[in-house]
Amino acid sequence: MTDLTPTMFDDAVARVRAEVASLHAELVRYGLVVWTGGNVSGRVRRGDDPRADLFVIKPSGVSYDDLAPENMILCDLDGDVVAGTPGSDRAPSSDTAAHAYVYRNMPEVGGVVHTHSTFAVAWAARGEEIPCVITAMADEFGGPIPVGPFAIIGDDSIGRGIVDTLSGHRSRAVLMQNHGPFTIGSSAKDAVKAAVMVEDVARTVHLARQAGELIPIPQDAIDKLYDRYQNVYGQTTDDRR
Amino acid sequence: MTDLTPTMFDDAVARVRAEVASLHAELVRYGLVVWTGGNVSGRVRRGDDPRADLFVIKPSGVSYDDLAPENMILCDLDGDVVAGTPGSDRAPSSDTAAHAYVYRNMPEVGGVVHTHSTFAVAWAARGEEIPCVITAMADEFGGPIPVGPFAIIGDDSIGRGIVDTLSGHRSRAVLMQNHGPFTIGSSAKDAVKAAVMVEDVARTVHLARQAGELIPIPQDAIDKLYDRYQNVYGQTTDDRR
Amino acid sequence: MTDLTPTMFDDAVARVRAEVASLHAELVRYGLVVWTGGNVSGRVRRGDDPRADLFVIKPSGVSYDDLAPENMILCDLDGDVVAGTPGSDRAPSSDTAAHAYVYRNMPEVGGVVHTHSTFAVAWAARGEEIPCVITAMADEFGGPIPVGPFAIIGDDSIGRGIVDTLSGHRSRAVLMQNHGPFTIGSSAKDAVKAAVMVEDVARTVHLARQAGELIPIPQDAIDKLYDRYQNVYGQTTDDRR
Amino acid sequence: MTDLTPTMFDDAVARVRAEVASLHAELVRYGLVVWTGGNVSGRVRRGDDPRADLFVIKPSGVSYDDLAPENMILCDLDGDVVAGTPGSDRAPSSDTAAHAYVYRNMPEVGGVVHTHSTFAVAWAARGEEIPCVITAMADEFGGPIPVGPFAIIGDDSIGRGIVDTLSGHRSRAVLMQNHGPFTIGSSAKDAVKAAVMVEDVARTVHLARQAGELIPIPQDAIDKLYDRYQNVYGQTTDDRR
Repeated sequence: MTDLTPTMFDDAVARVRAEVASLHAELVRYGLVVWTGGNVSGRVRRGDDPRADLFVIKPSGVSYDDLAPENMILCDLDGDVVAGTPGSDRAPSSDTAAHAYVYRNMPEVGGVVHTHSTFAVAWAARGEEIPCVITAMADEFGGPIPVGPFAIIGDDSIGRGIVDTLSGHRSRAVLMQNHGPFTIGSSAKDAVKAAVMVEDVARTVHLARQAGELIPIPQDAIDKLYDRYQNVYGQTTDDRR
Repeated sequence: MTDLTPTMFDDAVARVRAEVASLHAELVRYGLVVWTGGNVSGRVRRGDDPRADLFVIKPSGVSYDDLAPENMILCDLDGDVVAGTPGSDRAPSSDTAAHAYVYRNMPEVGGVVHTHSTFAVAWAARGEEIPCVITAMADEFGGPIPVGPFAIIGDDSIGRGIVDTLSGHRSRAVLMQNHGPFTIGSSAKDAVKAAVMVEDVARTVHLARQAGELIPIPQDAIDKLYDRYQNVYGQTTDDRR
Repeated sequence: MTDLTPTMFDDAVARVRAEVASLHAELVRYGLVVWTGGNVSGRVRRGDDPRADLFVIKPSGVSYDDLAPENMILCDLDGDVVAGTPGSDRAPSSDTAAHAYVYRNMPEVGGVVHTHSTFAVAWAARGEEIPCVITAMADEFGGPIPVGPFAIIGDDSIGRGIVDTLSGHRSRAVLMQNHGPFTIGSSAKDAVKAAVMVEDVARTVHLARQAGELIPIPQDAIDKLYDRYQNVYGQTTDDRR
Repeated sequence: MTDLTPTMFDDAVARVRAEVASLHAELVRYGLVVWTGGNVSGRVRRGDDPRADLFVIKPSGVSYDDLAPENMILCDLDGDVVAGTPGSDRAPSSDTAAHAYVYRNMPEVGGVVHTHSTFAVAWAARGEEIPCVITAMADEFGGPIPVGPFAIIGDDSIGRGIVDTLSGHRSRAVLMQNHGPFTIGSSAKDAVKAAVMVEDVARTVHLARQAGELIPIPQDAIDKLYDRYQNVYGQTTDDRR
């Protein structure tokens, strides 16, 4: 990839603004958020040096009914708002620093999502990873969903906890202890899919275990399912996750 | 604040009527009410003396599909309907006395909400406070959600139970024993947000605890989270809660 | 009441057809039914002799999307379709005999509803009555929700089980063992309200009890709440239940 | 049945395409699927030899918002896409081989559905059949919902597990261990109904058993209920299931 021309870059920003704005509706559709909670961001790639990339994120404390592309906020990878761009007069999501940390340290990540979805938070409140006992989970996450450290907002500790937990892990989702799930993906849409799926498996495995002993899936079956799903499912590479 | 002129006061009443009418839709959207249950009210400030304020509340036993601004009912702080105003030919919510008691005794309160939302009532039926084990709860309520006394409708005992429990407490929500949640806020919208969030945390903590031991959040982390959220979150002071 | 003239009776039939057709949407709205399950009926009073009354009920196995007034079916109190009336070419609900038995034996009943709503059926599968531990339940049902006998379709045993259980009982809802809830009311709307409320309390009390000891409500408080709600709540007598 | 003329066959394909496309909306309506999960297929009968039949299935990894008749994919009973037909440029559902195996080996089956619906998967993760303790389950499935073997995607083992479990069984639903429910029916719609009902009974029986001892239904009552429902319910043979 060579660096984008200014026009191509403007188009890329516009595309990510539209994508991030509309993806918030998926959080609502799947019941992952209430009120103004939760946030989606998407990376805008600029060229060869990922440190020059930007990302688009939702404003803080704004109703899901009012999320249009022009309200989204453009930030650099230090989490600072890019002055003079649409939306730059508003404060970005209070989780912006955590998103920025992830983009800075994981150049392959194209999207980040955070929610307080019910069942994922329930596992997080016990600091317990979700065991891989259903094939859909093997497909999507390739094993258990790990727990990240307890960290509170205000410095880089949330971002660092996400990156430390997910680096080298198959899972695109981490349950930050006492807090909730953060998910990453190749794009904002892929990270939203992971957010939807982590709540789905958190709910299903919670209910399954309440009623009796779970049957584990053998590791080699998990490996085969994960491998197939990453390479065969869907119409294109993008659908595969 | 000096006293409002009559025109300014009429405008204020109209604004609160519209706000209270439309906020009932949020109770439906978040599944906090069934049939005609639940009610929202909002204070109309008149000037320097809060005892002269009025409040707007929903009529009793009317379908959520029929709640227009002109159907809302204007009451004084004794809970009596203001004669000759729109809606004054109908009976106000049967919880009007409790709302009035709160407005009379907590001049800083701008809105009150009552629902029978499922998980909050479940904690109330056991008379058990909700422990603060998730960061969203520390943000929003600054600690556990307290339980109020058993009190039945017919005199001031519900209102007194709410005021006694919430005075000096960080929480804007109280679980009245065997009954359900009442929430207060700086405005009707803020009280509705608290009603949405109390059900969300009641559900999440219920589910978390069913499956094993909860990890407590250290008190100093709770304090930091609460302080930050009250002062930094959102676009304006009003979004902060 | 003197006997209706033929025109007045036709009008009454048309009113109940429209009411019964539209009330099915409330079963869907509150998630009480899936596919074509569940049914609502409403009595059409004819005059002094309740044995001459008719009732309107939904056709068997028809999608909730296709329930218009002219599809509703008019039956006499033996459960036989009134020949030559709109909809009479179709089979009525397979629960028609149970509805007819109730109308025949409880002249004060104006509406009957049956669903397989999840939590009410869960109590029914254990044959366990729902204890009265929340004030909304005291308001609406005046005590516990009773269980009726195991009875299968094909004769009058379901109808008889409903009537035997609810006669002289404050509750308008009965949980037929291994089957599900039937509710009665002064009108079809009132019976639908009872169906909505019985699922609401079945869910809330189930969840409450899962997590610990329930606090009972003293009998005299139950009596006061029930009495007040039947006589004071709402705008008219009809809203009171 | 004699063989269809080419025109009649084209009409039959068009009808099944439209039916299969629109039935996916029922999976969404009843909350049985998230994201692009789940799939419905329907057989197109060709004439006397069922081995010449085809079936219509959804494309892989495509949003439920984009499922139009022309996007559906026509396959033969080996699971191969019929070249040159609408949609044949896309990959069919990754569960196509399992559907094909069922159609090849159960000529009476007109529709197949697969979902990861929450409560059915929860039973599957424990490898536990759902006991028949509610009359709606006796009506619809005639007894318990059986569990099929653990089998992973890639050969015929899923299809064989479905066929081996359901052949000669009253139930139209099987819970594939660690995976989820597959349902069959006389038509695609009938299989969707079974998918809706299996989740409904999986949820209800799960909740019922969590709170105490279940009351079994005597076998002769199950037999009578099943027999009546298959022969009397609904307006036509098709509604009966």
